[in-house]
Amino acid sequence: MSAYDVIIIGSGPGGYVTAIRASQLGLKTAIIEREHLGGICLNWGCIPTKALLRSAEIYHYATHAKNYGLKLEGTITPDTAEVVKRSRGVSARLNGGVGFLMKKNKIDVIWGEAKLSKPGEVIVSETKKPAVQPQNPIPKGVQGPGTYTAKHIIVATGARPRVLPGLEPDGKLIWTYFEAMVPQAMPKSLIVMGSGAIGIEFASFYRTMGCDVTVVEVMGQVMPVEDAEISGIARKAFEKQGMKILTNTKVTKVEKGANSVTAHIEDDKGAKQTITAERMISAVGVVGNIENLGLEALGIKTDRGCIVTDGYGRTNVPGIYAIGDVAGPPMLAHKAEHEGVICIEHIKGLHVHPMDKAKIPGCTYCHPQVASVGLTEAKAKEAGYTLKVGRFSFAANGKAIALGEDNGLVKTIFDAKTGQLLGAHMVGAEVTELIQGYVVAMGLETTEEDLMHTIFPHPTLSEMMKESVLDAYGKVLNA
Amino acid sequence: MSAYDVIIIGSGPGGYVTAIRASQLGLKTAIIEREHLGGICLNWGCIPTKALLRSAEIYHYATHAKNYGLKLEGTITPDTAEVVKRSRGVSARLNGGVGFLMKKNKIDVIWGEAKLSKPGEVIVSETKKPAVQPQNPIPKGVQGPGTYTAKHIIVATGARPRVLPGLEPDGKLIWTYFEAMVPQAMPKSLIVMGSGAIGIEFASFYRTMGCDVTVVEVMGQVMPVEDAEISGIARKAFEKQGMKILTNTKVTKVEKGANSVTAHIEDDKGAKQTITAERMISAVGVVGNIENLGLEALGIKTDRGCIVTDGYGRTNVPGIYAIGDVAGPPMLAHKAEHEGVICIEHIKGLHVHPMDKAKIPGCTYCHPQVASVGLTEAKAKEAGYTLKVGRFSFAANGKAIALGEDNGLVKTIFDAKTGQLLGAHMVGAEVTELIQGYVVAMGLETTEEDLMHTIFPHPTLSEMMKESVLDAYGKVLNA
Repeated sequence: MSAYDVIIIGSGPGGYVTAIRASQLGLKTAIIEREHLGGICLNWGCIPTKALLRSAEIYHYATHAKNYGLKLEGTITPDTAEVVKRSRGVSARLNGGVGFLMKKNKIDVIWGEAKLSKPGEVIVSETKKPAVQPQNPIPKGVQGPGTYTAKHIIVATGARPRVLPGLEPDGKLIWTYFEAMVPQAMPKSLIVMGSGAIGIEFASFYRTMGCDVTVVEVMGQVMPVEDAEISGIARKAFEKQGMKILTNTKVTKVEKGANSVTAHIEDDKGAKQTITAERMISAVGVVGNIENLGLEALGIKTDRGCIVTDGYGRTNVPGIYAIGDVAGPPMLAHKAEHEGVICIEHIKGLHVHPMDKAKIPGCTYCHPQVASVGLTEAKAKEAGYTLKVGRFSFAANGKAIALGEDNGLVKTIFDAKTGQLLGAHMVGAEVTELIQGYVVAMGLETTEEDLMHTIFPHPTLSEMMKESVLDAYGKVLNA
Repeated sequence: MSAYDVIIIGSGPGGYVTAIRASQLGLKTAIIEREHLGGICLNWGCIPTKALLRSAEIYHYATHAKNYGLKLEGTITPDTAEVVKRSRGVSARLNGGVGFLMKKNKIDVIWGEAKLSKPGEVIVSETKKPAVQPQNPIPKGVQGPGTYTAKHIIVATGARPRVLPGLEPDGKLIWTYFEAMVPQAMPKSLIVMGSGAIGIEFASFYRTMGCDVTVVEVMGQVMPVEDAEISGIARKAFEKQGMKILTNTKVTKVEKGANSVTAHIEDDKGAKQTITAERMISAVGVVGNIENLGLEALGIKTDRGCIVTDGYGRTNVPGIYAIGDVAGPPMLAHKAEHEGVICIEHIKGLHVHPMDKAKIPGCTYCHPQVASVGLTEAKAKEAGYTLKVGRFSFAANGKAIALGEDNGLVKTIFDAKTGQLLGAHMVGAEVTELIQGYVVAMGLETTEEDLMHTIFPHPTLSEMMKESVLDAYGKVLNA
């Protein structure tokens, strides 16, 4: 007989949320973690970067106090050690929160590295080499290495930074997000390789803090998955802030100095140059943690570094499931959580809809922020839709002007035939908090009519969400 | 033959938006304004207060820079003249925007005071006595006094501050929102009479700017229309900021000094005391502008200071309509706009649903912010529903903690029988931008199930909106 109903490997946002839901459903549950409760997201990802970006935001406000009618006599400067300390403190608080939630929900925490030995069995050994500063102290009351059995095993091991051959991070001159999150001092200059969410957030943070930042992106636009028009507006804003951005450009080689990195770069026309900076951040994507889990021996199918699953998180081997980053893109915490809840409710035998990846929003917390859900204009055209596209600019919104944040755009994309909302794309202040309204609307299968009948409060940024819809149908009011 | 298809009296957010929609529908349209394009909302209401509150917010951040790891060496102080100048500039920009929109949409602007002489006819005379600094200069190309005719006349004359007998504002020691918005200097101490949206926003602004503020509210809670629990959390936050709050208390008399006001107050138990402050703000509600419009002569029905209309803005006299504040509560700009669009689309003969007042959100931009839609818990109980109530605290939300804004609550109220979302109530950072998601959901007749299946992005404050729903059904994850 199995000791547990379910064992979850990995306590990131996917894993720990799944464990809580499992416990709510009356399943005897254990969770295995090798480094930090809360995983990368909470300890070295989403959360601590948001804390850093908040410090940068406040620094920006304070240094622009005059714009708001305030008189600064003296100076305001970032104290790097304090900024980092605050960020670590935020992670520590939430990390402690996950520990509390595990206890509260009577979930056994097992500390160590897990390997699937056979269906229904996991062997846990001591953590060998943590990627970076492991949790200290290890939470009290955890179980240690040993063999554990469960009817259902859910792999939620997450992902780690992708490494390009010849451009390997060394943790000193070439950073991954780990080192970039805990700088000992602000570098005077920085090269950011890759402009996805991670790269551009760090670029934005360091630029706001006064660092000379150059972004090198191999694709034709920054934030390559975002709508081209939105990306273009963000790029202009970044450049206005003094960021240097090179698209269609790759780093071919790096040379390291005593306290500098020289990157050899080449654009798509073959033009070459070098850039030298104090530090470089490698942010060229992440890859699933599928190694040393015993997947091969059990014949669990993987594809391009991720475990292959169906809409309920099932792998090809009965009783073994995968969720979150290790189960493939989009590699987002909220996707992992949702996937986990679906997976465990399905295991319990509840009626549950499979994962619908079309309605997963994405948020990037650079300044200005970017948020989106659904198809970009280009993707919607590729898919063969005839489109109605609406746009509304922050420059025409009362609250945006009152906030002093009048740069941005809300763009909506409808299927001209049916009025279905296919996609929504935003750049500007607070859009990461706005996008949920469109996500709710898409989930409820909205058409343009429903959104036009919705009364958005005034004066808010969210009013733009309605105006953009009205614009798609030639009815925009304030433009 | 009428010169116009439609004449709109008043260019506030209701009036000017209705004029634009009328023009889009091919109707020959004129708008009459006596003081400021954009009305109170844009010139002396929603918009300039948001600008003031933004200055206060930034001042708060800058003076708490240390909390974010920043080092302030020196001082930061509000420059009252500059704060006011910025606020006036924001209004001026939007006021100019309305002028531009009128031109762009070929809407004739008529400058002066309007009186309905008979159905289909309006007599415009010179503006007699503007409430406060009139628009200067009067926009170019406007028409002047005269007799104008239209098939349809829409009254959108808005509202003005309510005056309590014996407690009349004098513009010097006792302010309405007009004077409160353009202080020549920060008063050292302030009594705010009334804690509705207007009163509490000014209380919040002046308190944040360092003023000693006492709020006197005749009802049992601040923001009397809001859910009691939400109001209680906001009150605690205000008190922690050093605001003095007296509920169940009325001002019975004021005595004026050379540079001070002494308010005699009395609570519901009959206990009396006096408070002295440099200034007092009277914020005891607004009343519709129904005077001198010729309503009586035409037999247009009014009730408690407002024009009586149906769900399409029709009065009891054919061809005469009313929208916005003058057509009754809730007196909110977004209600006025929506009512105007419904009214004009109905006039044009389009199929349109009548106004549904149950789905109008309300926002208050104090610190912390408050936002809500639908029934409060008390009102829902009164209406006989059996409830499922969900709560989620900002203290358990990762982004809230990263922002340094971990005080607040998201509360959702469902009909236990049907899962219908009856109300949503929020207090905390950015809730004025969050509430729209619930409004969209209510418009699309959501149940709890739909919201549970929605993927809210991580890490955002908006995730709390889902957790609160989960909590109502015993499924909360992060608490």
